[in-house]
Amino acid sequence: MTYDPKHMKWWGWGNEETEFNAQAHPGFWPYAKSVLGIEREDFGKREWKIEDIELSESRVDEPFLGKLRAFLAPSQISDDAKERVVHAYGKGFRDLFRLRSGAAVRAPDLVVYPESERDVCLTLRAAAERDVTVIPFGGGSNISGCLERMETRRPAVSLDMRRMRRVLDVDVHSCTAQIESGIFGPDVEQQLAAHGVTLGHFPDSFLHSTLGGWIATRSAGMQSDKYGKIEDMVIALRMATPEGVLATRPVPKASNGIDVNHLCIGSEGTLGVITEATMRVHPSPELRIIPTYLFPEFEGGIEAIHRCVRQECRPAMVRFNDPDKTALSLAFRPPVSGLSKIASSLFKEYLRVKGFALPRACLMLTAFEGSQHSVARQVREVRNIYRQCGAISLGANAGKSFEATKYDFPYIRDFLLDRDVTTDVSETSTLWSNIFPLYQQTMAVLRASILESGAQPWVGCHISHTYQTGASVYFTFGFQQQPAREMEQYLRVKRAVQQSFIDHGATLSHHHAVGTEHLPWLEADISPLGVEAVAAIKHGLDPTNIMNPGRLQPSANPFDSWTRLADGTDFNPEISSVPRRAS
Amino acid sequence: MTYDPKHMKWWGWGNEETEFNAQAHPGFWPYAKSVLGIEREDFGKREWKIEDIELSESRVDEPFLGKLRAFLAPSQISDDAKERVVHAYGKGFRDLFRLRSGAAVRAPDLVVYPESERDVCLTLRAAAERDVTVIPFGGGSNISGCLERMETRRPAVSLDMRRMRRVLDVDVHSCTAQIESGIFGPDVEQQLAAHGVTLGHFPDSFLHSTLGGWIATRSAGMQSDKYGKIEDMVIALRMATPEGVLATRPVPKASNGIDVNHLCIGSEGTLGVITEATMRVHPSPELRIIPTYLFPEFEGGIEAIHRCVRQECRPAMVRFNDPDKTALSLAFRPPVSGLSKIASSLFKEYLRVKGFALPRACLMLTAFEGSQHSVARQVREVRNIYRQCGAISLGANAGKSFEATKYDFPYIRDFLLDRDVTTDVSETSTLWSNIFPLYQQTMAVLRASILESGAQPWVGCHISHTYQTGASVYFTFGFQQQPAREMEQYLRVKRAVQQSFIDHGATLSHHHAVGTEHLPWLEADISPLGVEAVAAIKHGLDPTNIMNPGRLQPSANPFDSWTRLADGTDFNPEISSVPRRAS
Repeated sequence: MTYDPKHMKWWGWGNEETEFNAQAHPGFWPYAKSVLGIEREDFGKREWKIEDIELSESRVDEPFLGKLRAFLAPSQISDDAKERVVHAYGKGFRDLFRLRSGAAVRAPDLVVYPESERDVCLTLRAAAERDVTVIPFGGGSNISGCLERMETRRPAVSLDMRRMRRVLDVDVHSCTAQIESGIFGPDVEQQLAAHGVTLGHFPDSFLHSTLGGWIATRSAGMQSDKYGKIEDMVIALRMATPEGVLATRPVPKASNGIDVNHLCIGSEGTLGVITEATMRVHPSPELRIIPTYLFPEFEGGIEAIHRCVRQECRPAMVRFNDPDKTALSLAFRPPVSGLSKIASSLFKEYLRVKGFALPRACLMLTAFEGSQHSVARQVREVRNIYRQCGAISLGANAGKSFEATKYDFPYIRDFLLDRDVTTDVSETSTLWSNIFPLYQQTMAVLRASILESGAQPWVGCHISHTYQTGASVYFTFGFQQQPAREMEQYLRVKRAVQQSFIDHGATLSHHHAVGTEHLPWLEADISPLGVEAVAAIKHGLDPTNIMNPGRLQPSANPFDSWTRLADGTDFNPEISSVPRRAS
Repeated sequence: MTYDPKHMKWWGWGNEETEFNAQAHPGFWPYAKSVLGIEREDFGKREWKIEDIELSESRVDEPFLGKLRAFLAPSQISDDAKERVVHAYGKGFRDLFRLRSGAAVRAPDLVVYPESERDVCLTLRAAAERDVTVIPFGGGSNISGCLERMETRRPAVSLDMRRMRRVLDVDVHSCTAQIESGIFGPDVEQQLAAHGVTLGHFPDSFLHSTLGGWIATRSAGMQSDKYGKIEDMVIALRMATPEGVLATRPVPKASNGIDVNHLCIGSEGTLGVITEATMRVHPSPELRIIPTYLFPEFEGGIEAIHRCVRQECRPAMVRFNDPDKTALSLAFRPPVSGLSKIASSLFKEYLRVKGFALPRACLMLTAFEGSQHSVARQVREVRNIYRQCGAISLGANAGKSFEATKYDFPYIRDFLLDRDVTTDVSETSTLWSNIFPLYQQTMAVLRASILESGAQPWVGCHISHTYQTGASVYFTFGFQQQPAREMEQYLRVKRAVQQSFIDHGATLSHHHAVGTEHLPWLEADISPLGVEAVAAIKHGLDPTNIMNPGRLQPSANPFDSWTRLADGTDFNPEISSVPRRAS
């Protein structure tokens, strides 16, 4: 069975037929109500109808359409309303809130589905000739505003890459695979598994994101500790630009001047369209296990992870929750049977005897994969270090539960949005010596900003993606919406957390890209001259600025991108005064 | 004792007082004579005098000099003849041959020694204002023509960074060190050792090269299998350009658009001057050992290395010599005592019984470092794999000898140059499935091209720097010079080997940079649009093209850089008809 890369529901995450099953997690909603101070239950079931979306007329340039029709089949071109809405945004809070409010005024005018690099090249050429802008679209899962159209002066076409999904070649001896960029996660792994290899890239968005999207945004998968971030996996690539195709050679490493692979990686659609990449792959692991541990407190657990890194015994995945995130995980457990209830109270007593204060306890998920032999050795070494740091083993159940539901978490946001709760995430990375200070400062900033916005805060954090020099620090936050102030609340909180990252020596994002939401901090992160250098590349490869205009280019007022389009159109009204749809 | 970063001798490699000691390696010269077909011994001792160098008048722009004097001390500026000659070239064959022939017509007009980033910035600003070109200079060890001035129309200043040599900060917990770029290898390691850490970057040029040079050329150290290439170690950097300073934040990994660190890494001085970098470092290893093995033949040894990579048991260094390189290593051994002679014959008999045919046998040097525990485990695992592939252990002596002399090999080239023998190296990297085919094809091409040049070829190869997907393949070649045809012979052979890399799917260089010598293959390697993208960055950061003009920018005739300057001046006469100095 081949993988069917359907569009996600336009009003939320994931497949249209799937939603968060609250009955299967009976503790979750009571926990959420309690921590967020929610007292009502009268949230009616809402139906999202495409007809309710306020959509501007498709402004397609007829000569452009004529050119497209010369080389594309009718099935490759669409100006259908639903197609335009699906391609209007990614899946950030700002995206979903606006769609649920009935506004997609910045939807692209046209959607094109290329089936070959030639299709892409000819589309870009036609767009350049007719001054039409192009926004490359992978799975549409980005949550930083990467898919939002930043300019409305010129017509825009969304270039949906999902039909370019072939694994073109696998060199098992060299562990490389040449793959078209529009392929989705499950399809990559299914096709590679036939050759006995894995890419090893499993981001939370795995089911709904593409290779090209991963590369264009510098994505990280859950097992990046073993397999690296996506930029570490790219051996060669091809990128179609308005000026032609940039192509590199599949070699493990080179010293051939500036590494032009790295001009394409992270370019967020501003230079061209990545059409294929030769990726480093790995033999499929013999074994994969996910032991779970409980630490008495957060700082000691961070120290345990650090010791593992220093002693070169590193799990393929480390996901270490702070006390709040741990409490959320516990609330998320499946229903507890009578017998388990007794076991559970016994366990609590055991923890008490061991000196654990449950409100401070922290859950550590690890994953190990590889040969039987090496997994056994690594598990032993890591367990020893964890125990020295006061951890106790929770066995394999929590890990199994995580494995079974790891791609489902984004559905919870929709469940909460349906109940007038805003949730989102902000993540960064920093050096080991800064992780705990950054954590404390940012938690305080986040709580204060939510309180200031007039709501009771829920804030949690986890550490993941470890390196020799540091790790990623990932914050999740939620709060009750105040009617008609939803977007303002969100922007206030989002601004506070991002500013905290930059104020405290971290980066604007470890793996979620710049997009619209992080653009105000780009200059602080890579320096004004870094931004100029990026603009210079764009000027060279896309002289008429048709590729995703406005992106990676902060304006003089850094928050313009939050409130105004690149062409000066005011964006504020859309944020703050769009009428709330009747439920 | 602090490290004294003296200039190397201008007519050859290394310290002025050091040369290859043929008496300590009595087998070497007889071996060389035999394989190269040399019958004479009448090579007089030559003396190299700076006064004999034909040097153009220093064309310093007086207003430029006036500007410099406003912020630099007199000791930071020099137009002394020897200073200019020292900074005229790197240490490739082409460089040394021309200097030994008495020609340094393209020496820079001035040498400047900045002592701070401010000095660098003000120098670049003054240069931009007066249209003076700038060539950043680290240790001067490059062998690809990276230091050769490509344009003579405008005055040129060599910016020698060696006085910027401080380790500014070490974060032992995070394993990062912020280091000025002009620091030499031994100085880096000495200063870091005081904090119990190592950078782990040990290129063959270690004693005579700088951090900034490593980064600007994408250098690789001998232990890159454990510590990575230099580009893998850069956490953040600062680069002064004519448009200001590009600066990034010290974070382990980010998703902040195009990674601007990678615009600076490998930029070969064309965009600006890297003034400092925050580098990933590692705890100093408890133990380092260098076991040595002999394999019955080359292909089986490559397979053994491949198996180790696949089974994730990898030495910190692998250096696997083909039969010819192995014979060279044996010829290089210290004098053999009477007792050792007997042991040696017994060993030969043992090899015969084991089925080794000595002319096909291949020497494998490995290095392991880390904790006692992990080294012991790795040595055991690797040894098992090697034995399965037919290898026998040679114990620790060959490794100790390598360790003692590993930085001395370049002195041999001078010894041979003194004897009218041209030697040089060309290296590349390719995927595992292509290593043996590339080796066979390139060996054949090299031998044929040397024969065509009218000489008896000596060609050897070793494999090093392994990756999941492939490894570096490193060729060494030598031949007798034909009077008055020395440069033509060299260029013919160099062109053949580089063309073979590109024809057979490899890259122009794994770690020696593009420079002048590899420039004709840059377009084939990174595609014409890749070259345009690099030019676009340069246009943005160095709009008046004062930084190392001509470099990374192939002209319409790709071999122009071999025979002509970027400003059109003919270079041919300098190559082929410069009179040979009397010895």
